[in-house]
Amino acid sequence: MLIAINAYKQVESKGTKMKDDKKIAKHIHKVQYYETDQMQVVHHSNYLRFYEEARTAFMEKIGLGYDMLEKNGIIIPVTAISCQYLGAAVYPHELEIRSKITKYTGVRMTVEYEVYDLVTDKLINQGITQHAFVDKEFKPFAMQRNYPELHKKFLEYTVEE
Amino acid sequence: MLIAINAYKQVESKGTKMKDDKKIAKHIHKVQYYETDQMQVVHHSNYLRFYEEARTAFMEKIGLGYDMLEKNGIIIPVTAISCQYLGAAVYPHELEIRSKITKYTGVRMTVEYEVYDLVTDKLINQGITQHAFVDKEFKPFAMQRNYPELHKKFLEYTVEE
Amino acid sequence: MLIAINAYKQVESKGTKMKDDKKIAKHIHKVQYYETDQMQVVHHSNYLRFYEEARTAFMEKIGLGYDMLEKNGIIIPVTAISCQYLGAAVYPHELEIRSKITKYTGVRMTVEYEVYDLVTDKLINQGITQHAFVDKEFKPFAMQRNYPELHKKFLEYTVEE
Amino acid sequence: MLIAINAYKQVESKGTKMKDDKKIAKHIHKVQYYETDQMQVVHHSNYLRFYEEARTAFMEKIGLGYDMLEKNGIIIPVTAISCQYLGAAVYPHELEIRSKITKYTGVRMTVEYEVYDLVTDKLINQGITQHAFVDKEFKPFAMQRNYPELHKKFLEYTVEE
Repeated sequence: MLIAINAYKQVESKGTKMKDDKKIAKHIHKVQYYETDQMQVVHHSNYLRFYEEARTAFMEKIGLGYDMLEKNGIIIPVTAISCQYLGAAVYPHELEIRSKITKYTGVRMTVEYEVYDLVTDKLINQGITQHAFVDKEFKPFAMQRNYPELHKKFLEYTVEE
Repeated sequence: MLIAINAYKQVESKGTKMKDDKKIAKHIHKVQYYETDQMQVVHHSNYLRFYEEARTAFMEKIGLGYDMLEKNGIIIPVTAISCQYLGAAVYPHELEIRSKITKYTGVRMTVEYEVYDLVTDKLINQGITQHAFVDKEFKPFAMQRNYPELHKKFLEYTVEE
Repeated sequence: MLIAINAYKQVESKGTKMKDDKKIAKHIHKVQYYETDQMQVVHHSNYLRFYEEARTAFMEKIGLGYDMLEKNGIIIPVTAISCQYLGAAVYPHELEIRSKITKYTGVRMTVEYEVYDLVTDKLINQGITQHAFVDKEFKPFAMQRNYPELHKKFLEYTVEE
Repeated sequence: MLIAINAYKQVESKGTKMKDDKKIAKHIHKVQYYETDQMQVVHHSNYLRFYEEARTAFMEKIGLGYDMLEKNGIIIPVTAISCQYLGAAVYPHELEIRSKITKYTGVRMTVEYEVYDLVTDKLINQGITQHAFVDKEFKPFAMQRNYPELHKKFLEYTVEE
């Protein structure tokens, strides 16, 4: 399994700093006291939550809110995550999480993230989440056939690279 | 960054099911109600916590408890994570998290995990965490020079593959 | 609202240390690293989770598991909590949470808790949770009428004081 | 211990809805997906985190940020909590947490909270937290003697009722 992280690091070194763009969402998260651990920094598991915050806020903004999708029977579980910690976030700094959909097939979706500390202006974390589109019984389906309008919207906001 | 997950999947297909071995730790975690989300399954961020539970329990068992290490000024933050969700854990199933140290250099460490649902006996999640050894100011150092006895112990429990 | 805590303190001073009894559940929780905060102790919100762990484990043991109840359409939300922090739990101590049902009417339930640090053998926290019995639409109902067998079981394990 | 919650309920019925005032802080928290549980609502333990968010934001705003206080060796742990759940918060509603310091002695502090669902405009939760002022060894001390300027500030923002 080691290959994954090695490959990941190679990609990182290419410099994928996200540019300003309407397809790139910016979400502010203020570090909370309850997110710290005894290492005096944000516990590493919280970054997956920051990704989720940024992703769901973005999708809500473009008319694809998780609550609406779930009411329509569309569940989007996370199927894989890669995450790299370049620095540590501390209380009570504000973080900016930039996210963009980098792949969308109607069956699967990939979202990429960069987390900046707005006090130090440094990139402290970057990651990827992969998702599947499933129904309430967790059975995969194709968005294109069942929800063509929503499918179109997803495509519109995908940044193929 | 997509390469990371692609590579990861290739590796997965090789079948890396951990064998019973003294260098492989088994940790039981019972899914708690508070770990579920409205998708009716364990929220994906909790798997990083399960990894931590398994890793710290294993290290404590072999005489390398995080509390002892931190009292000696040795901090071991997570520097990277890959995680693949193959199934969903539900309340109140018991999970078995198997973990092993697959790389240890005295400066860095890699730990790999497999999570089994003990009710269904299925592998539902697998992942990797990478770590650095740093002091209280988060400066990296070499275990071998500063803590030769602990270094030896880490090496003893590393499963190079 | 101040009265609540004042009243609570008076009661505390009476010495309500739970005795060993089949109606009193004992649950072990090992403090995890991810439960600590930068104060170097367990974040106070986690005690509500420890209560839940203890309560659900107890109920599962006596044949009233939350998963079974929820499959039958019985939801038991928390309606009120009082919690007093007498000491701080630290990683990686083991805690023992003692719990008992102190009131059960078929419509409402009260559970009381004491948390002991097993390393120091001190009482570090005590609390109460109040619950209602509701259906999936969160409408209250009477257990006695709808589920007489389960009602009987609840009564059997209630320690009226 | 039952008295506590009974007393609490009496007080609740008096109608303690906070009025707009410079000593009353308003904090917005958007419910996150990861805060829900399989009951399809926000897990009850999160309200203690919402209280903390509101309290620390308020204190930061008036020049009493926890980070500044902790750098000065002033730790303010929670010593008791009462919390009443009047309704359930759902994803992705915005909540408004109103908080005010209702008692401050230089040794102890009490903060009260009301949580409103901004979509339904209903009061869904109210609570109290009690705090002690301690040093890094968790020993109590008097703010008035050690930090007269900060003490004055605390008094200025206390709403004695």
